[in-house]
Amino acid sequence: MTVHEIVEMDGHLIDSLLLTKVLDTVINGSGDYELLDVRVGRTSTDTSHATIEVRAADEATLSVLLGEIQDLGANRAAELDAHLVAADTDGVLPVGFYSTTNLDSWVRVKGKWIMVTNPEMDCALVVEADSARTVAMHRIRRGDQVVVGNDGVRVQPTERRRDDTSFEFMNSEVSSEKPKGLIVANVAARLRATRAAGKKVLVVCGPAVIHTGAGPHIAWLVREGWIDVIFAGNGFATHDIETNVLGTSLGVSMQGHAPAEGGHSNHLRVINEVRRHGAIAAAVEAGYITGGVMYECVRRGVPFVLGGSVRDDGPLPDVYSDVVKAADAMRSHVSDVGVALMLATTLHAIATGNVLPARVETFCVDINPAVVTKLADRGSHQAVGIVTDTGLFCRLLAEELKQQ
Amino acid sequence: MTVHEIVEMDGHLIDSLLLTKVLDTVINGSGDYELLDVRVGRTSTDTSHATIEVRAADEATLSVLLGEIQDLGANRAAELDAHLVAADTDGVLPVGFYSTTNLDSWVRVKGKWIMVTNPEMDCALVVEADSARTVAMHRIRRGDQVVVGNDGVRVQPTERRRDDTSFEFMNSEVSSEKPKGLIVANVAARLRATRAAGKKVLVVCGPAVIHTGAGPHIAWLVREGWIDVIFAGNGFATHDIETNVLGTSLGVSMQGHAPAEGGHSNHLRVINEVRRHGAIAAAVEAGYITGGVMYECVRRGVPFVLGGSVRDDGPLPDVYSDVVKAADAMRSHVSDVGVALMLATTLHAIATGNVLPARVETFCVDINPAVVTKLADRGSHQAVGIVTDTGLFCRLLAEELKQQ
Amino acid sequence: MTVHEIVEMDGHLIDSLLLTKVLDTVINGSGDYELLDVRVGRTSTDTSHATIEVRAADEATLSVLLGEIQDLGANRAAELDAHLVAADTDGVLPVGFYSTTNLDSWVRVKGKWIMVTNPEMDCALVVEADSARTVAMHRIRRGDQVVVGNDGVRVQPTERRRDDTSFEFMNSEVSSEKPKGLIVANVAARLRATRAAGKKVLVVCGPAVIHTGAGPHIAWLVREGWIDVIFAGNGFATHDIETNVLGTSLGVSMQGHAPAEGGHSNHLRVINEVRRHGAIAAAVEAGYITGGVMYECVRRGVPFVLGGSVRDDGPLPDVYSDVVKAADAMRSHVSDVGVALMLATTLHAIATGNVLPARVETFCVDINPAVVTKLADRGSHQAVGIVTDTGLFCRLLAEELKQQ
Amino acid sequence: MTVHEIVEMDGHLIDSLLLTKVLDTVINGSGDYELLDVRVGRTSTDTSHATIEVRAADEATLSVLLGEIQDLGANRAAELDAHLVAADTDGVLPVGFYSTTNLDSWVRVKGKWIMVTNPEMDCALVVEADSARTVAMHRIRRGDQVVVGNDGVRVQPTERRRDDTSFEFMNSEVSSEKPKGLIVANVAARLRATRAAGKKVLVVCGPAVIHTGAGPHIAWLVREGWIDVIFAGNGFATHDIETNVLGTSLGVSMQGHAPAEGGHSNHLRVINEVRRHGAIAAAVEAGYITGGVMYECVRRGVPFVLGGSVRDDGPLPDVYSDVVKAADAMRSHVSDVGVALMLATTLHAIATGNVLPARVETFCVDINPAVVTKLADRGSHQAVGIVTDTGLFCRLLAEELKQQ
Repeated sequence: MTVHEIVEMDGHLIDSLLLTKVLDTVINGSGDYELLDVRVGRTSTDTSHATIEVRAADEATLSVLLGEIQDLGANRAAELDAHLVAADTDGVLPVGFYSTTNLDSWVRVKGKWIMVTNPEMDCALVVEADSARTVAMHRIRRGDQVVVGNDGVRVQPTERRRDDTSFEFMNSEVSSEKPKGLIVANVAARLRATRAAGKKVLVVCGPAVIHTGAGPHIAWLVREGWIDVIFAGNGFATHDIETNVLGTSLGVSMQGHAPAEGGHSNHLRVINEVRRHGAIAAAVEAGYITGGVMYECVRRGVPFVLGGSVRDDGPLPDVYSDVVKAADAMRSHVSDVGVALMLATTLHAIATGNVLPARVETFCVDINPAVVTKLADRGSHQAVGIVTDTGLFCRLLAEELKQQ
Repeated sequence: MTVHEIVEMDGHLIDSLLLTKVLDTVINGSGDYELLDVRVGRTSTDTSHATIEVRAADEATLSVLLGEIQDLGANRAAELDAHLVAADTDGVLPVGFYSTTNLDSWVRVKGKWIMVTNPEMDCALVVEADSARTVAMHRIRRGDQVVVGNDGVRVQPTERRRDDTSFEFMNSEVSSEKPKGLIVANVAARLRATRAAGKKVLVVCGPAVIHTGAGPHIAWLVREGWIDVIFAGNGFATHDIETNVLGTSLGVSMQGHAPAEGGHSNHLRVINEVRRHGAIAAAVEAGYITGGVMYECVRRGVPFVLGGSVRDDGPLPDVYSDVVKAADAMRSHVSDVGVALMLATTLHAIATGNVLPARVETFCVDINPAVVTKLADRGSHQAVGIVTDTGLFCRLLAEELKQQ
Repeated sequence: MTVHEIVEMDGHLIDSLLLTKVLDTVINGSGDYELLDVRVGRTSTDTSHATIEVRAADEATLSVLLGEIQDLGANRAAELDAHLVAADTDGVLPVGFYSTTNLDSWVRVKGKWIMVTNPEMDCALVVEADSARTVAMHRIRRGDQVVVGNDGVRVQPTERRRDDTSFEFMNSEVSSEKPKGLIVANVAARLRATRAAGKKVLVVCGPAVIHTGAGPHIAWLVREGWIDVIFAGNGFATHDIETNVLGTSLGVSMQGHAPAEGGHSNHLRVINEVRRHGAIAAAVEAGYITGGVMYECVRRGVPFVLGGSVRDDGPLPDVYSDVVKAADAMRSHVSDVGVALMLATTLHAIATGNVLPARVETFCVDINPAVVTKLADRGSHQAVGIVTDTGLFCRLLAEELKQQ
Repeated sequence: MTVHEIVEMDGHLIDSLLLTKVLDTVINGSGDYELLDVRVGRTSTDTSHATIEVRAADEATLSVLLGEIQDLGANRAAELDAHLVAADTDGVLPVGFYSTTNLDSWVRVKGKWIMVTNPEMDCALVVEADSARTVAMHRIRRGDQVVVGNDGVRVQPTERRRDDTSFEFMNSEVSSEKPKGLIVANVAARLRATRAAGKKVLVVCGPAVIHTGAGPHIAWLVREGWIDVIFAGNGFATHDIETNVLGTSLGVSMQGHAPAEGGHSNHLRVINEVRRHGAIAAAVEAGYITGGVMYECVRRGVPFVLGGSVRDDGPLPDVYSDVVKAADAMRSHVSDVGVALMLATTLHAIATGNVLPARVETFCVDINPAVVTKLADRGSHQAVGIVTDTGLFCRLLAEELKQQ
């Protein structure tokens, strides 16, 4: 253990597990530590402070350790400016680039701490004049001033809210064995609070939203102004339109069927006709689509991003077949999002989690507990998992919001 | 029931359930039937024949019914030519286009039955001179002669193999409660038979192939010539390279860890360096990558298609960020595939199932039974599900093949 | 193939898959067949008839085959009396005993076909004077006349109902991707029909019924006379009482928590107090229990069977700690059951499935698809799986029944 | 907050999360706290100490809180004798009885701390002369001196082992995405260490152990002395014997099948014959059973406990049909167990977890992650989950132990 560095932490270190996680990370990463100073807040509202010396066998190991524990709020005590290196190739970062978290962050430039405007995980930090922003690797341009190493970067971890007792019980585990009535009421309360605060509600939908019969409830949420932006894929939009177009003419919905996939051509015919119109909005204009989620989005001007996938049929003309462009389009919508609701989707939930700041309250509804676990594993630790039937959940959520 | 049509079926109608499925489909689709003639084969090797009158209330319903039961091998008795209509817009099909299955199919043009060269589901049939081929919607060009309606199309359903008793027990259910030793031996036998027959082995990999420790075994399979083409995504290739590059230098693999995701920047650094080299092959050439699955592919000239996804970081320079182009690249590799092995992946398994003919023997290995069910639901009925630990499965498969 | 036997089948052999299953069973069981006569019904309402010669290499194999295909309705053409052998030891059956299915069955005694009074799977058939009944192995008494071999036994397989189109869509698959509103309405309709027909409604409950907040809804169903008998275990009854007793005094339910298990002693204290009273009914009488499912059962005289389990704490005084006696108690309640609803339980669902005749309509509600699959695997093929959130399902079911 | 109590904690409070959990428990339980003194160990090997004042609105709430945090090692600072109350009824505890954890515990009697001889969760503590033991509720006899309240009881929580780095990576999560080779090697090392230390190895088996082909590997483990006691149910023992008896004569195992359940009578015939012999050991003596797990147990004198279940057929004569007696039989075997291996079983794993001290290292192998989660939820926090294919796991474990 020949090299060392001193880090500092402030906040609810004990209840939020942050101190434990930092010490674990150091030991698991072949390092060691000494707690130089720990002042534990006496009561549940006091904050704590810790000063920790982190030690490792060499600079490389220490550097990795410092990066990992900084994600947990253990910032270097030394007040150093960030080290900036210009990118020399488009789409490629300098070696040793600082890799961002989705937490609120600051960069120290010429002795001044600048807040990062758009926290996003797994990006680079680019400094320009008095501002600092995250930039995804592919958007780096030659000459961008990129932060390298951990010097001069601070992050503020998201803490568990103690003041928020009504919701507390959802924070810990993913379990289907929980009563759902109160949970629905709480999610509804969050949507109301978000709207009242002038923030946006983002809903991310998988195709099972339609299959489980939640389509009309989501359409109602759009119509009534509860949803400000939708992220989804080709499958969701297609089945939504298919239910509208072919449900009316053939009476499929009366039989209680979700349109069967595989072997059926209904979804292909719907995609083909929307392609003929050139866009979903045009198909709405022309009267081809007369209801459903996409229809309400068009009518109300609610933006949507449909990200392509290698398994797509068609696809619909509105789908971004270039996934890098799809992610960029998603990025352009997340800045004012206050709450995100992810419904029956793994792929799009993870994709959205990638671009959302950690401070955005996130609910992930799925009948499969593995989906929720996966989202948290991919870095969206703020996601609250609700293991239930998506169709029934959306129905109850709409009922709850109608009661206002 | 004012309209009707006569269809015919031949084959192992009883044991393969085809007759039952056809009759169910007619009833469920608001139609009715009369069995005009049924000759059931007396023994287990004899084939059966059925002539069925299908009835419906109107032409539209009847047409839908005829389309659905044709997928099950109930072809119209009437010997009519296919009806061809020229596409009038790029990427858009004529109304009423015939939507393909992934079964062997024939089109009747000027009294002659032409075999479709490349069966693929959810496509259009385009006839050109003496040939007929499936064409995905987005690849349709103005002027293409597209089959419209069900006239003049015949399909041959894939039957369950009775002669193949050793494998019979895997055909029915998805269950984790099956002994795996014999299953592994059977998969190995199929790989040998495929190689002996001069056909290609396709392997589709999810990132968990690396996480579960199967990477070295798959790399060995590539090195020894057991794999002819690989389909995967950015995650699989990145983690494979990450294990190679950072496993060697930091000793991660010695601790038995799969590199953790989320919060770590290792995968980003690896992607960044490969981007700097411009391609995986260039990174291999330059000595940056010295082992693993992608390395062996480059060294042995085994082609791979890396399809992009909206959740990708980076991505690696070899990844198709345009998913439509990715699917087209996959299409270009499936023509001689004899067996497909899908390992711990949902997205890429479904995407591959979309472009594979039904006659390609397909094994889907995953610890989660839902993945296998989902693949079959999406139309890849030929897929045999093997619910087990992917890491252990690949280890045993490699051991089995070494014993040859 | 030196031995053979002729069997006959009647009914909807094609649509119900029975003919296919019989032929599969013969081939998979190392036998062979010849279809001597097949007359397929011309229309969807006509029945079919098949006469099949089954062949095998030896008598033992043939005997096994005949037993298996008889479960599918392939009865021996020969009109023979059943072979009766007296049991020589209590609780032990004669070698070669006929093992029952849960289907309607008949035994031929002295040239007369006698209907079996209480179909139950995996039992013996005991003939006494003019009656025949199933008897579980442990209840066999020395001298009982037990049917041995397959001669003189006929079974009538349960056929899928074609006339019942509204419910048809639930018969096939286990999927969470189905709209639940219509399903709930259909289950409610079945409960109404069962009550109207003077049959009993059996509900089987796991502890998660309470955890998911369904307790009050089930209590309402008991109070309003929708439930005639309940099967459950120590956990369900304990948590139901615990919620009542400690929910009121400590306000647990107001916080929306299910009482946590593990580490808590609440459930132990409740069990202890009920033990002090001597029985649940006594605790109700004494005013210790003032609401909930068990309370309503006691108040309304709805019988319940609480079967013990090796993992039980306590247990409650009403729990059968002898599981053989528990199963016997369950048997005493199933004779007039018209519909069975299994809620969030694997163990008790399988136990109930063991003693229910196949003709009892059975709905199995669980958030985990594996539970439903398991039930069907264990022989309860009639069970319709509903993959959803049990708490929300029960809430909607109660709402539906209130609307009558 | 009108009542309060001072508690103390010692140990690795930060890394083991114990301090965090205690504070969370207080807040979630409507209490409050003040940290009177916290001394955090400076290095990773130093222990920490905390003195905490816990406050609540009333005595009842405080008492509940003190009970809950004592399970986490927060013992009352006051050195008081335990309060003893004599039971006045067989099988019923005094009101306010102390409910045990499965941790090492001590009772203070007449100023002396007595160690509890047999830690088991959810029991009462009975003091007799100089000894203290846990007693399950049903075994309480009138006159037993039972500890009431939390005074005079101390518990020592099990801490995570930091010195045990090779195994560290398994301690946290339940995931199928982990390489299994190293895990198997570690479990093998634990079995060797346990045997070397003169402790017993307990294996708990579900029926899927046989279905997945692990039977011969477990039989080998018994034969070679790696297993000292087996807990299972009627299903496991029946299928084990069935495979032996009918596998030999009918060649079932050669086809790679697990004997199908449902519709088959094989398992019934096997049970019937063993019942005729009167016991499994007698059937082994008589040459009816010639191999398999139960056979090896009989031959080697390895004890087994077969706990009954309400879903059992038969059952086998060795099965405890009284589940309370089954649990008592299990209790009689756990005192010297050093390691427990739970294979593909939920019911018996939870039942075993109920009677095992927390200090027994426990591995829970199942292909379904929910099983492992459930075990931990029920209080067996020490259980390490290994999500994999049980058949392949046992095969690799046997191979590993052969290499010694």
